Amino acid sequence: MSGAPETSPVPDPAAAARPAPLPPTLAWHGGEDGELALLDQTLLPHQRRVLAVRDLETAIEAICALRVRGAPAIGVAAAYAAVLGVRAIAPPADFQSATAAVCARLAASRPTAVNLRWALDRVSRAAVREATLASLLREARAVHADEVAMSERMARFGAPLVPNGGCVLTHCNTGRLATAGDGTALAAMFRAWQDGARFRVLAAETRPLLQGARLTALELAAAGIPVELCCDSAAAGLIARGAVQAAFVGADRIAANGDFANKVGTYGLALACAAHGVPFYVVAPTSSCDLGIADGAAIPIEERDGAEVCALAGRPIAAAGVGARNPAFDVTPGHLATALVTDRGVLRPPYADAIKALLAAGR
Amino acid sequence: MSGAPETSPVPDPAAAARPAPLPPTLAWHGGEDGELALLDQTLLPHQRRVLAVRDLETAIEAICALRVRGAPAIGVAAAYAAVLGVRAIAPPADFQSATAAVCARLAASRPTAVNLRWALDRVSRAAVREATLASLLREARAVHADEVAMSERMARFGAPLVPNGGCVLTHCNTGRLATAGDGTALAAMFRAWQDGARFRVLAAETRPLLQGARLTALELAAAGIPVELCCDSAAAGLIARGAVQAAFVGADRIAANGDFANKVGTYGLALACAAHGVPFYVVAPTSSCDLGIADGAAIPIEERDGAEVCALAGRPIAAAGVGARNPAFDVTPGHLATALVTDRGVLRPPYADAIKALLAAGR
Repeated sequence: MSGAPETSPVPDPAAAARPAPLPPTLAWHGGEDGELALLDQTLLPHQRRVLAVRDLETAIEAICALRVRGAPAIGVAAAYAAVLGVRAIAPPADFQSATAAVCARLAASRPTAVNLRWALDRVSRAAVREATLASLLREARAVHADEVAMSERMARFGAPLVPNGGCVLTHCNTGRLATAGDGTALAAMFRAWQDGARFRVLAAETRPLLQGARLTALELAAAGIPVELCCDSAAAGLIARGAVQAAFVGADRIAANGDFANKVGTYGLALACAAHGVPFYVVAPTSSCDLGIADGAAIPIEERDGAEVCALAGRPIAAAGVGARNPAFDVTPGHLATALVTDRGVLRPPYADAIKALLAAGR
Repeated sequence: MSGAPETSPVPDPAAAARPAPLPPTLAWHGGEDGELALLDQTLLPHQRRVLAVRDLETAIEAICALRVRGAPAIGVAAAYAAVLGVRAIAPPADFQSATAAVCARLAASRPTAVNLRWALDRVSRAAVREATLASLLREARAVHADEVAMSERMARFGAPLVPNGGCVLTHCNTGRLATAGDGTALAAMFRAWQDGARFRVLAAETRPLLQGARLTALELAAAGIPVELCCDSAAAGLIARGAVQAAFVGADRIAANGDFANKVGTYGLALACAAHGVPFYVVAPTSSCDLGIADGAAIPIEERDGAEVCALAGRPIAAAGVGARNPAFDVTPGHLATALVTDRGVLRPPYADAIKALLAAGR
């Protein structure tokens, strides 16, 4: 290549094919009269539209419709949405009651992820300490900053567990789109890749709403990490054939004994990994832990509209008139998790005492 | 309702909502100069189009594209397609070699289901016995009639295993659309329903090509059997919550030890059923048994185009440029099957000697 001018940039074909970086998953713009900016994830990967949310109803609709989703991200979004809701009640006769009412409405928007309640409890307590909108916004910003910091710490603890030279199975989306930071399970992979580990990712497509196909594949491709999709149902057979060296998933709520709820399909993947001795790692912040729930049986499982299963992008895919069961989550017994990777360290089973000690240490 | 005229028919709302009966899955019309009629299953449930197939290439395309699918149905379709293929070589210099060449092409169209080879072996042997097109067509018709009879016998053996008052999980399509008769696993349900058992069916949608959502739900609704869909990944969690009393699936190839290949996703369902003590029944004709294969590891697994995963009805659903693993089948160890229901009786584990004895008895 002696004829080429020295200043000519060497094209990186891999980088050229990479999707452009995404806008932030969520952000608060301005002060107390500001607005919540949400990247509408239902339109990804085809369209990138940022919603300017200025009222409670719009925020609740965005959470219910999964325009913002992922346990940590909906916690942060709800904290900011509480500011919007209380701001609209002007002037509230009883600031604390108004805040509590707004938080109760937000908490009911999605039942399974406990981060939503964790964030709203913090905002409610801020209203008790100081009955001003400034106090609520300050707390929402603190929730946001804490989730970013937890994401960073989970990545650091999880990265060494990513099998160098192997294939990592993941489910749903646990990256930047699911959190305020780099993610949970996916953050561990981003960090491992930055640290020099080389691996491939097998992303389960995650029916019905295809977060794996639409979001995880996009995030990994944008980061230059090799990724292939598979149907959720194909993972077990691929695991049996030795195609997977470790699985990394997130969690929407972890009970006191280590049982955890996560996107529907997680339990089946955990059973398949256990049957073939493949390590199964759960990466979640302490904001996903719920000591108030003894075991997985008590975790409320959101049942969503069967239409999500019977149609795809508005097009019916099933026989007319046929309905569907559509649980959005399932519960995996803690003993199937090889380790729980949290922002305060890596726990190994049995989890009950370890989780309790972890949460007590952070108070 | 004394005012209503006695002759007024009482409307049956359930029957009114039922889909109309489907045209036959496949049929041969005419004699040696006839044609193979195939219901194009890729268009269901939205369109009902019957293809008139008069040449080998069209038949192979129909099998590869899953216009006709289901292990028993593709066996019968291939037997008739062999007649079309040999007919076009006029006059064949060596009738047996021509038949063998046509059968070899058909056998290569889909690798996993052994019924295809079973049917084509019969046609090839017919050419040896009598080197005429009439002989081939006679044998294809015999293959067809035998599959219908096997379907009837599987239904009779399987029906008593359907849990009265319970919920039956099934995967992919194992009904009239998968066979020349009433089906395999679904035929047992049709028969149980006719015999007075009452139950509900939970049909896994069966990504990527949605045979559960498109075909099984249609067949069950047409028969008046209550059916709900679920995402393939939702089944394990529903099983854990006690929502399923038995699972019934088909098989595309059963190895000598009882390991079996079936539509991808079957293995994960079998693991979940085993974890929760839910009976897992495999219903398949003896034409799906392959004593030439010792165990599941040797069953060839068809890997189909990743585009089936990354797009749906031509619409991309994944991030651009991302590929997919797309095995069409997986292998379930025989020990996870509570029973194998065949056209010659119900086998219980361990299967190795039972399968051998069964096939020997039928010779």
